[in-house]
Amino acid sequence: MSAEIEAATAWLTASELQAARQRLPIVYLNLVPVRLDANARVSHVGLLLRATPDGDLTRSIITGRVHYGELILDAILRHVEKDLGPVCLPVMPTSTVPFGVFEYFPDANVTGLRDSRQHAVALGYVIPVNGDCRPSQEALDLVWISVADANNGRLDLEMTDGHSRVVRAALAYTGSLS
Amino acid sequence: MSAEIEAATAWLTASELQAARQRLPIVYLNLVPVRLDANARVSHVGLLLRATPDGDLTRSIITGRVHYGELILDAILRHVEKDLGPVCLPVMPTSTVPFGVFEYFPDANVTGLRDSRQHAVALGYVIPVNGDCRPSQEALDLVWISVADANNGRLDLEMTDGHSRVVRAALAYTGSLS
Amino acid sequence: MSAEIEAATAWLTASELQAARQRLPIVYLNLVPVRLDANARVSHVGLLLRATPDGDLTRSIITGRVHYGELILDAILRHVEKDLGPVCLPVMPTSTVPFGVFEYFPDANVTGLRDSRQHAVALGYVIPVNGDCRPSQEALDLVWISVADANNGRLDLEMTDGHSRVVRAALAYTGSLS
Amino acid sequence: MSAEIEAATAWLTASELQAARQRLPIVYLNLVPVRLDANARVSHVGLLLRATPDGDLTRSIITGRVHYGELILDAILRHVEKDLGPVCLPVMPTSTVPFGVFEYFPDANVTGLRDSRQHAVALGYVIPVNGDCRPSQEALDLVWISVADANNGRLDLEMTDGHSRVVRAALAYTGSLS
Repeated sequence: MSAEIEAATAWLTASELQAARQRLPIVYLNLVPVRLDANARVSHVGLLLRATPDGDLTRSIITGRVHYGELILDAILRHVEKDLGPVCLPVMPTSTVPFGVFEYFPDANVTGLRDSRQHAVALGYVIPVNGDCRPSQEALDLVWISVADANNGRLDLEMTDGHSRVVRAALAYTGSLS
Repeated sequence: MSAEIEAATAWLTASELQAARQRLPIVYLNLVPVRLDANARVSHVGLLLRATPDGDLTRSIITGRVHYGELILDAILRHVEKDLGPVCLPVMPTSTVPFGVFEYFPDANVTGLRDSRQHAVALGYVIPVNGDCRPSQEALDLVWISVADANNGRLDLEMTDGHSRVVRAALAYTGSLS
Repeated sequence: MSAEIEAATAWLTASELQAARQRLPIVYLNLVPVRLDANARVSHVGLLLRATPDGDLTRSIITGRVHYGELILDAILRHVEKDLGPVCLPVMPTSTVPFGVFEYFPDANVTGLRDSRQHAVALGYVIPVNGDCRPSQEALDLVWISVADANNGRLDLEMTDGHSRVVRAALAYTGSLS
Repeated sequence: MSAEIEAATAWLTASELQAARQRLPIVYLNLVPVRLDANARVSHVGLLLRATPDGDLTRSIITGRVHYGELILDAILRHVEKDLGPVCLPVMPTSTVPFGVFEYFPDANVTGLRDSRQHAVALGYVIPVNGDCRPSQEALDLVWISVADANNGRLDLEMTDGHSRVVRAALAYTGSLS
């Protein structure tokens, strides 16, 4: 896509985006950062600490939308670097086939996955990172929890809106769900 | 989703939809109807005959968008029945994990998949149908081509905008691509 | 495969099979039978009741090996009909791509999935069944547990050798894991 | 697995292995090495040059069996390093879910995938490599062909026994099949 088109369309005004979000499902990403051990098994899952609009603190995965004119792989890289910093050295997926498709609605009763702002159709990818991660932007902190802890109920204690389900599906896909 | 919300939001006016299509990627479906033989192998692929906006005839798969508030599985059923009729008896996928994610742009040079109206992110599913298929709505006709013919260049002769690539990816996924 | 070849090779003697099992990984299937509701969502998971070699009762999914010369789709059908009877009306997968690959070893410490007889590499498939299921062969009984119960710890109470993990991965793949 | 067990069982005598291969399907790997460009898109596919038992030269992907007691991820690394050398720096898959399952038989008429020695059930994985590749062991040479060439019939000219089909399925999975 040419630079002009991107400048014109990728960044909607806040009110335009809000209007669109009440009319159309939004193409979203759900990215689960992981650390691998020396044998290429998942050892840790990365969770961001965020403040919710209501002022609560919650753990979350990396999420965000795909811009108009943007390829999925480019959007993955943009969101990972936005949240984990420019030297996190992510391993990009070899395919855009996601491990799961997660459907979020303002009403938590539809799927159990809630997004108060919109109907989002999120493609899920597991993203191993090899570098130095520094949470940036609105993320306050990043913790790496072990696969053992992730399997022992810790996810549900700290995550809201169904995000723990996405992490569990990622663990299942990587063979780490017990 | 409640009936009122659906009435209010699923059907945008034509101008609203056109505006949104120039601002946001649209959640789309690419559905490849197939016939299975007695051993559950794909024997035929179903292609619709459509008139393009330019008046040309082209073969295509089943495509369409997901409405605001609509679940993917419901959108799949809606589009299949819209194009193949109410008694086509589709076999619904057991998972919303697609066999491929197809990114369409107005500019054919980005991915080779072109949609003059929009940037669409299409989730691909293979849909076996067991019943009586009657093309409806804007589809003029439906043909079933054998897997052998699909592998012998016939797809490229009749399909445009990269749709043959989606069919080949579906054949690869089902083990029918030679 | 011709009938003569099948007769000659599919059925090893018990001692031959035992010897092979200590030398080579065995190609296995892990099949998770499910019931779908009217909207094509998984509502129930089917579990067989079996007596273990030690005389204990345990719940399990459908498992079994692929014979020499046998296609995976044919082996799936054979095992489903063997355990659920000839009129269970299974929906065969459209692809042999499994939702998970499960590696069983005699030593439970390797992957948590244990098979005392062999090193098995099991391909996992979700199999919706529409018909009348009658457990046959060595299965004593079949129960359908709801997705809600499957998510509430009931699997771990009744299943051994890591089989509950396979069911949870199947639930994750179908979007039913909470 | 302990070293003693590996020594005892991984390496069957040639005659034992030959006997087993006429009795049981063999767990196999089909690994497609690729180079990625700066945007994480597949740019080239790596093909090995091998001499067939009949003395012909043929291009092939990386293939090999999983040993008794060996995990799939370990077998992937072993075969990649065996054929591409110890500094090829492969990117290991994050999941053992394959992009395809390929069923080889001595009779080419069953699936079109032929292996004169055995019935093999091969799990397919795409393996990006970042380092310096030096074909070793029985591979005589390694060539990297561009995605454009791979899509223009070059695969079929040089590959036998259905291997080109595996490469095409890998291209479809990575969004590179045209």
